[in-house]
Amino acid sequence: MTLPKIGITLGDPGGIGPEIVLKAFSGNFVLPCAEYILFGSSHVLREEEKTLGLRLPFESSNAKKALTRGSLSLREADSQLKDIKKGAPSAENGLASFRFFEAAVAEARKGILQGIVTAPISKQSWALAGVNWRGHTDFLGQFYPEVIMVFWSEKIKIALLSHHVSLREALEKVTRENLRSFFLRLYQGLERMRLGGFEFLVSGLNPHAGEEGLLGCEENEEIIPAIEEARKNGLRISGPYPPDIVFRNALGQDDKIVIALYHDQGLIAFKLEAFDKGVNLSVGLPFVRTSPDHGTAFDIAGKNAASPLSLIEAIKLAVELSPAPF
Amino acid sequence: MTLPKIGITLGDPGGIGPEIVLKAFSGNFVLPCAEYILFGSSHVLREEEKTLGLRLPFESSNAKKALTRGSLSLREADSQLKDIKKGAPSAENGLASFRFFEAAVAEARKGILQGIVTAPISKQSWALAGVNWRGHTDFLGQFYPEVIMVFWSEKIKIALLSHHVSLREALEKVTRENLRSFFLRLYQGLERMRLGGFEFLVSGLNPHAGEEGLLGCEENEEIIPAIEEARKNGLRISGPYPPDIVFRNALGQDDKIVIALYHDQGLIAFKLEAFDKGVNLSVGLPFVRTSPDHGTAFDIAGKNAASPLSLIEAIKLAVELSPAPF
Repeated sequence: MTLPKIGITLGDPGGIGPEIVLKAFSGNFVLPCAEYILFGSSHVLREEEKTLGLRLPFESSNAKKALTRGSLSLREADSQLKDIKKGAPSAENGLASFRFFEAAVAEARKGILQGIVTAPISKQSWALAGVNWRGHTDFLGQFYPEVIMVFWSEKIKIALLSHHVSLREALEKVTRENLRSFFLRLYQGLERMRLGGFEFLVSGLNPHAGEEGLLGCEENEEIIPAIEEARKNGLRISGPYPPDIVFRNALGQDDKIVIALYHDQGLIAFKLEAFDKGVNLSVGLPFVRTSPDHGTAFDIAGKNAASPLSLIEAIKLAVELSPAPF
Repeated sequence: MTLPKIGITLGDPGGIGPEIVLKAFSGNFVLPCAEYILFGSSHVLREEEKTLGLRLPFESSNAKKALTRGSLSLREADSQLKDIKKGAPSAENGLASFRFFEAAVAEARKGILQGIVTAPISKQSWALAGVNWRGHTDFLGQFYPEVIMVFWSEKIKIALLSHHVSLREALEKVTRENLRSFFLRLYQGLERMRLGGFEFLVSGLNPHAGEEGLLGCEENEEIIPAIEEARKNGLRISGPYPPDIVFRNALGQDDKIVIALYHDQGLIAFKLEAFDKGVNLSVGLPFVRTSPDHGTAFDIAGKNAASPLSLIEAIKLAVELSPAPF
């Protein structure tokens, strides 16, 4: 048996990223067996260890151990950081967190890593550092333009048709053609992740899913034809359901994924039901990528107040979904 | 001390309305002191009593009793119902439920009732009966065109800027002028309902409330100016907040009302947090009107399976918000 190799990026050194990584790996949490490789800076980690009074359990390379219960190592990812400024965006931290991520993605693209878990970066820090990408997903988009954001928790799983666009723009994306392609990509991206696969519940766009066309035409003209076509292609998919009912109906059902047609339709439900326990999963990449469902939390950075629980969920999901390498 | 007079309409005789009214008043529930007047039909109630094996505690008029702990009486509201068809829309049931409601509204408009609680009607039954209104709120709209729908529960309270229109149409209603008028009407309608009043939390329209204009312009151009103006007029109001955060932040805070900018923004959150315990409140009328947050439930009508809890919450809220008559 070979264990999956999972890269963990430290995120913005000025945020809570290094703290939650340290807590996840040096606390009493049971993490799944894997070869974990931190992409970061030993300087950042040492400082964080001092602040928190914790030690990371790095091990000298020991093939036998790695095979039975996993291992943890550090990949020094070329950062010039000297003084670590906590609690605010900064160019230095932005550059460092970008280098960590870039290095992990390069390894994953080569097939060396089966999964990446990314601690939060600051878009503002990246901008200050002159990094032109607006975040992790944006960077990945250059290689994989059709990446899909899925919000994942034990209680509910939600895939977003569109994410960071205005509501007006999101409406324009609700077309038969877009939906058809989206359903198929989502299905293919998740296919191997669960025995028996998933069932997709599609939300409507309008109140009461349009109420037979009385409250909007997109259901009849775009959504229903796309669902019917997908069903003909063998997908387990149904809807459109009234948006204020579909999330409730999917609660606690492990094999259901709700397809939300715009950012807040999905995220209002997700943040109410899975706050702190949510994981963000990118679907449509040749490797697994997960991240905790929170940001850098600059306001509590450096105060030993951050919870590693969402990161731990992200790590568990990444390992669970990673195919074992051969 | 004079008790408020509260009208209770039985709703569609083919649905669960009569059952939940009967259960609410003949069970062991503690209802607040009021003079309750059922607007309905003795025939419908007798049949329901037989089915459920319950008896309504009607009292002969007794002024002294009424003053101390309330009373229950029936207003026979001109219905020609003979055989009561359960479990499906019908013209007879539609006409009966319309008459019950019409009679109660007439009394409330004269100032005889301080509040009305409406059990669910069927829009289809009304249509079959040739009633031209599409529901309770639509009927009230002829007298009070600016009625506002508020969804009310202990856990969260949400007011809707618009309700039964397509999402595209709802977007067009997010204008500075509409918001300004809405904020003021909501404030005036709720002013006397709580000592110290309410604080309004306004949701944004776009993801992350527009993220400084990057994800949509309505926040900067319409919503923020309207909020600022309302604040200058003395309202406790703030926002716009990211739609996926504002509901969570208001949970459990008794003096907060979230203003949702379209139907599902509010109702996705409300149905997840207050399912079964929600009450629908109409604001902007000269009397109080509440209703349970569910429909006729034809599928379980006549089966002694309906829960009166949401109706009881609606009754409690109506009494709580009713000004005592002088």
